Amino acid sequence: MNRSPVLIVGSLAYDDLEMPSGTFENVLGGAATYSSIAASLLTPVRVVGVVGNDFPESVLDDLRKRGVDTAGVERADGKTFRWRGRYSADLSSRTTLDTQLNVFADFRPKIPAEFKASPFVLLGNIHPALQLEVLAQVEKPQLVVADTMNFWINGEPKLLGEVLKKVDLLVINDEEARDLSGIHNLVKAAADIRKRGPKHLIIKRGEHGALFFDDAGMFFAPGYPLEEVVDPTGAGDSFAGGLVGYIARVGNLAHPTMRRAIYFGSALGSFCVEGIGPRRLLDVSPGDLRTRMDQFMALVETGGRVELPE
Amino acid sequence: MNRSPVLIVGSLAYDDLEMPSGTFENVLGGAATYSSIAASLLTPVRVVGVVGNDFPESVLDDLRKRGVDTAGVERADGKTFRWRGRYSADLSSRTTLDTQLNVFADFRPKIPAEFKASPFVLLGNIHPALQLEVLAQVEKPQLVVADTMNFWINGEPKLLGEVLKKVDLLVINDEEARDLSGIHNLVKAAADIRKRGPKHLIIKRGEHGALFFDDAGMFFAPGYPLEEVVDPTGAGDSFAGGLVGYIARVGNLAHPTMRRAIYFGSALGSFCVEGIGPRRLLDVSPGDLRTRMDQFMALVETGGRVELPE
Repeated sequence: MNRSPVLIVGSLAYDDLEMPSGTFENVLGGAATYSSIAASLLTPVRVVGVVGNDFPESVLDDLRKRGVDTAGVERADGKTFRWRGRYSADLSSRTTLDTQLNVFADFRPKIPAEFKASPFVLLGNIHPALQLEVLAQVEKPQLVVADTMNFWINGEPKLLGEVLKKVDLLVINDEEARDLSGIHNLVKAAADIRKRGPKHLIIKRGEHGALFFDDAGMFFAPGYPLEEVVDPTGAGDSFAGGLVGYIARVGNLAHPTMRRAIYFGSALGSFCVEGIGPRRLLDVSPGDLRTRMDQFMALVETGGRVELPE
Repeated sequence: MNRSPVLIVGSLAYDDLEMPSGTFENVLGGAATYSSIAASLLTPVRVVGVVGNDFPESVLDDLRKRGVDTAGVERADGKTFRWRGRYSADLSSRTTLDTQLNVFADFRPKIPAEFKASPFVLLGNIHPALQLEVLAQVEKPQLVVADTMNFWINGEPKLLGEVLKKVDLLVINDEEARDLSGIHNLVKAAADIRKRGPKHLIIKRGEHGALFFDDAGMFFAPGYPLEEVVDPTGAGDSFAGGLVGYIARVGNLAHPTMRRAIYFGSALGSFCVEGIGPRRLLDVSPGDLRTRMDQFMALVETGGRVELPE
């Protein structure tokens, strides 16, 4: 089951980014975009989303050249989803200045017949009702990975609860984990969340790395320490894409696979933040990925069990 | 050179701690106290500091029973250093409510003759002029480790610069690294700081772990994820004590030794925060330490170099 296809459902968008280094408008964005680009470095991707008349066919062409099947990208009458945000001087926080849902407002995911048997599914951060609609259309995937956000945690707790029952691996950040569980301590929050459905849970902590929880225990992987961070937009989605891309490439959910998948996700997130929008991510070669993974493993190598000399 | 002695110079104190869980007064504190307790689990310790008439001899007796030589603890006329602080609800920040230097105000470290040849030296966070006085009294230590703080970075930059030239391993937190270098990015800040003297540098990031830099490269170790954090007081000092204690136990400064030393420091820091003041730390057995280190290694185990399946 190596190089199994991954089905990715979520937003394709254009972003206007007000960065400390300048303002960048009409930057390709959207969770499904970032996740697809990242995952496509590891395995074939099938993407489902919606774009408007203004979305250039050439961008979809570029995705197809990377092994992303765009048959599930619907072109609707209207404008593509747009987001405008401003980052703080140290890039540690951002403010949404404007959100125009446009064609995304009426998005109802339609999974093409040839995508329904996808063994690996990544549900981007969309309305839990839509996440459930996707799950109703696919046929027994081997792994369902989902993202969500505080907006749904607080606004649609019942529907989100239904989603959680059907999700194998939930990927959220620390603030979301605390909101979802009502528990501040992340180890305790993880135990609570895992009782609601997902047997596997990743809690992302931004540049500080990610915690993974499953029946075999707890695992931690750091963020890769970079000399320069240019734009954090899409880092979490690149992480999720790299993560599920690696799992699909390997074709199993064993605990050691998950550990490595988190490093691949983290490596792809680290490339993402090195350029404005997905620029750097789009340029990553298999050799670049291998080199970064080697550097990453060197960063954390402990030599295994430590014996105390007498 | 196994189990070499470590000379620790710094404060012995009493703390009044206003915690979310209640107020605890007259809690044993001070950087040298925490560092000595942690290091004594790994190697013999020699401590130099000052206490007042109010400091019970029984506390020094307890330290001596742990293998801490207290011949360098001067008893001065007056009261022991006191600090009162209040922690935020999630323990992520604290406010100093009162500092009474008392006998610590006139402290001039006097290294007993039998301590002068100590091969490993830990300079706690004291005035850089006093750190220099210690270094003038000791004989060619194999390793000098130093801590400092923003107060000295901003208030005594010249003297601190002199200290840095004589320090082998500087242990500071991320905020201090940014202040000292004037550089926000930690990888770049580390390169700048290492040019000022310390060949080895640790940048602590609290619960998020620590970065280590030397000529052989960069290393990261996380904080141990605990189910319950009770009191962060002394965690950084326990980290430093465990770190230098392990290096002295092993007796070399090879890069793999340093990596393991950081995990031992981090493990001892994790015990420290599990109780009010040094309560939990004082109870740690060699078996507890071994178990936590095994759990710690299991938390981060990656299986080494990752090969991508085709």
